[in-house]
Amino acid sequence: MRTSFRRLTLGALVLLASAGAATAQTATSKIDSVVIRKIYDEALARGQSYENLRYLTTRIGGRLSGSPQAEQAVQWGKTVMEKMGLDRVYLQEVMVPHWVRGAKEKAQVKSSKGKALNLNVCALGGSIGTNGKLKAQVVEVQSLQELAALPAEKVKGKIVFFNRPMNPLYIETGRAYGEAGDQRRSGAIEAAKRGAVGALVRSLSLAHDDFPHTGTMSYHDQVTKVPAAAVSTNGADELSHLLKADPGLTVELEMSCQQLPEVKSYNVVGEIKGSKYPDEIITVGGHLDSWDLAQGAHDDGTGCTQSMEVLRLLKASGLRPERTIRAVLFMNEENGVRGGNKYAELAKAAGEKHLAAMESDGGGFTPRGFNIEADPATVRKVQQWQPLFAPYGSAEFSAGHAGTDIGPLKSQAKALIGYECDSQRYFDIHHTAADTFDKVNRRELELGGASMAALVYLLSKYGL
Amino acid sequence: MRTSFRRLTLGALVLLASAGAATAQTATSKIDSVVIRKIYDEALARGQSYENLRYLTTRIGGRLSGSPQAEQAVQWGKTVMEKMGLDRVYLQEVMVPHWVRGAKEKAQVKSSKGKALNLNVCALGGSIGTNGKLKAQVVEVQSLQELAALPAEKVKGKIVFFNRPMNPLYIETGRAYGEAGDQRRSGAIEAAKRGAVGALVRSLSLAHDDFPHTGTMSYHDQVTKVPAAAVSTNGADELSHLLKADPGLTVELEMSCQQLPEVKSYNVVGEIKGSKYPDEIITVGGHLDSWDLAQGAHDDGTGCTQSMEVLRLLKASGLRPERTIRAVLFMNEENGVRGGNKYAELAKAAGEKHLAAMESDGGGFTPRGFNIEADPATVRKVQQWQPLFAPYGSAEFSAGHAGTDIGPLKSQAKALIGYECDSQRYFDIHHTAADTFDKVNRRELELGGASMAALVYLLSKYGL
Repeated sequence: MRTSFRRLTLGALVLLASAGAATAQTATSKIDSVVIRKIYDEALARGQSYENLRYLTTRIGGRLSGSPQAEQAVQWGKTVMEKMGLDRVYLQEVMVPHWVRGAKEKAQVKSSKGKALNLNVCALGGSIGTNGKLKAQVVEVQSLQELAALPAEKVKGKIVFFNRPMNPLYIETGRAYGEAGDQRRSGAIEAAKRGAVGALVRSLSLAHDDFPHTGTMSYHDQVTKVPAAAVSTNGADELSHLLKADPGLTVELEMSCQQLPEVKSYNVVGEIKGSKYPDEIITVGGHLDSWDLAQGAHDDGTGCTQSMEVLRLLKASGLRPERTIRAVLFMNEENGVRGGNKYAELAKAAGEKHLAAMESDGGGFTPRGFNIEADPATVRKVQQWQPLFAPYGSAEFSAGHAGTDIGPLKSQAKALIGYECDSQRYFDIHHTAADTFDKVNRRELELGGASMAALVYLLSKYGL
Repeated sequence: MRTSFRRLTLGALVLLASAGAATAQTATSKIDSVVIRKIYDEALARGQSYENLRYLTTRIGGRLSGSPQAEQAVQWGKTVMEKMGLDRVYLQEVMVPHWVRGAKEKAQVKSSKGKALNLNVCALGGSIGTNGKLKAQVVEVQSLQELAALPAEKVKGKIVFFNRPMNPLYIETGRAYGEAGDQRRSGAIEAAKRGAVGALVRSLSLAHDDFPHTGTMSYHDQVTKVPAAAVSTNGADELSHLLKADPGLTVELEMSCQQLPEVKSYNVVGEIKGSKYPDEIITVGGHLDSWDLAQGAHDDGTGCTQSMEVLRLLKASGLRPERTIRAVLFMNEENGVRGGNKYAELAKAAGEKHLAAMESDGGGFTPRGFNIEADPATVRKVQQWQPLFAPYGSAEFSAGHAGTDIGPLKSQAKALIGYECDSQRYFDIHHTAADTFDKVNRRELELGGASMAALVYLLSKYGL
């Protein structure tokens, strides 16, 4: 079948595609499977996500909002899309937080008898520094609830150690991440409310290793700010073990991280104008910022390069989309979502009509399908396209959460769509020094871009 | 749902399972989804495939048939299963080929002007050595057919360089491997038939890198034996490039590999006796031998540890299978299939009744489903269980090739079943020095064992 398909010229394909669109506006037509195969062929034979990702991750590297690398990434994204010959490439200005880790980041366990052991820690994003060394006894809890129930004297003056592991029994690891995340997000606030002087949080990971996992945390205006750090899963197990034998041990934490004044940054937007309904917009994006510890490969360099690749695949497949397609590299997903909010705000102010927004922010692993966040009738409408994705193993179309950057568009778009890929390895490296280019497989990444482009093609052709 | 399930005691579960079996022998019952969830929970919380694999790969390592490591692996597999408290653990004697790579393995391109360039090569398994250095000009072809069509003088005295890449457009990489494999398997025979002095084969890989991929090749009794080596994909591209500019270049090949006399080895078998139909046997296996270049992690340490884990998961879940379940660690899949043939031969001689045989030999990546090799009615019968696997992302049940080691059982078993997992990364490392333990993800591996155990549970309960 592929052989005969490949004998078709590009012109013939486009003619066939147009004919299909004319006779079947709401169902799929036979030509759709041919066009989708063509998109996948282009991605597998000549996909450019991987080489783009190589540059972003190994030449620019980690790019936390406000950093020089984030600024380089903006210019890089703009240049890559300008070279694609799109109808329009532009930047959207947005003010972003500027947190820096600083040079000092260290923790030691000191036993009652004076023995010292290094702990693998990293500051959580947004934490204040320790202003010298912070030394205190440790109280271990499994949850915010357990902390709230402790007598005051058990917490006061101590470092609260939140040690609830991610639940290993879920098949989708993102669900376990969501459930364990309250410790990281609110741990410092709840610890300080009870008079603690710091928070130490078990890394959000299903792996047993030495990598501390950073990630955003928050403070409350009415509550004292205390430093918060993540400890590797092995380190957390060790600390818990030591505490059982020696409850009087102390942890000495030293971190020089700090929040600097906000700085100007940008979303990067590339656009193909719709041939028939130019005012109806389909957005596809990932976030350009990443944590500073590594290269931000799976989080979310892959989503950025896949989103740009969607535009390239449509063009290279000779398709002229009926609706306007925008690739957006959002700034500041990790510690503020300022880019996502700004994009929705500008869209609203301009009275734009958003048909759908898609996000890839779960890594660049083998595609499995899509999460659709919309009213039930719209979910079913998208699900009718499932069979077209079965040959590519990407046909799991479920109702569910779509993505953080596109979230602010919810009231403006008919559907938010999350690109879903294999989730087993993602949280092993998420927000760690191990989130590097070598963890990305070329085919898995390019297949993801193809899946996204195929669904964008259908959305553009049939609407919602 | 999982919470209430976890409140059930083990005894209650087993009672429920028995009740289900009594009232519904051919369809699935509600208890099946509960039992399967229990199997997955056990695998995700306490799975032992990963730690078993760590020992096999990092403590024993590569274990080509006839090697001391293969013998160690036999003893290790026997010991692991003996510790499980199975009903029976035993060895099946089988004579296997004993090919050794030797210390010398080297190739250099020498340009007409005398410049030298090292090529990353390895001997193909079974190749004769070069007996000193073999130096010859090179003729590049894309296929056995192209070679057959060349004029005799273009081939005679030369090294034939088979350079057809694996087709990157297939979604299932195994299909591309199958199609490109004739060059490796028959290249030396076809080259020698035309008077060539050696064969150099592009590595069977979809990656662009420097790893040569070994694998079995064959000779024909009536055709001169010539040495055959694989060259890395980067090396193949470079050689092809150089040949265009300098068709007179030579390749100098030196390999000290050789075939030694056959040695005695073993399949390792562990068995749980069926409670109701002890004479009906379900086999689940992987192959214990591996190529010598690396640790044989994904090929096929993972299949071995998963197969043993199936027995452990059934026991740990409190299940007493109705039919007899056997885990088999087959010897010599890579270069002879002697173990697979011996197993079928002994089964036939003993008049055993084989219901089904399952094999895991496609790596230890995230589960996708199963290939079923059986008559159409039996395929449909197995496919009726698909919905039970949907919550685990392992519901792709297709008719198709099941596995090499269980192939000889075809006429004796109602169904052969191949465990299928994500195939994108497999051939990047297959038969190379990169097939190491660190490439295996714990959760992906344990999920695979759970998928296999779940299907074995259903086969045991309902038959075919």
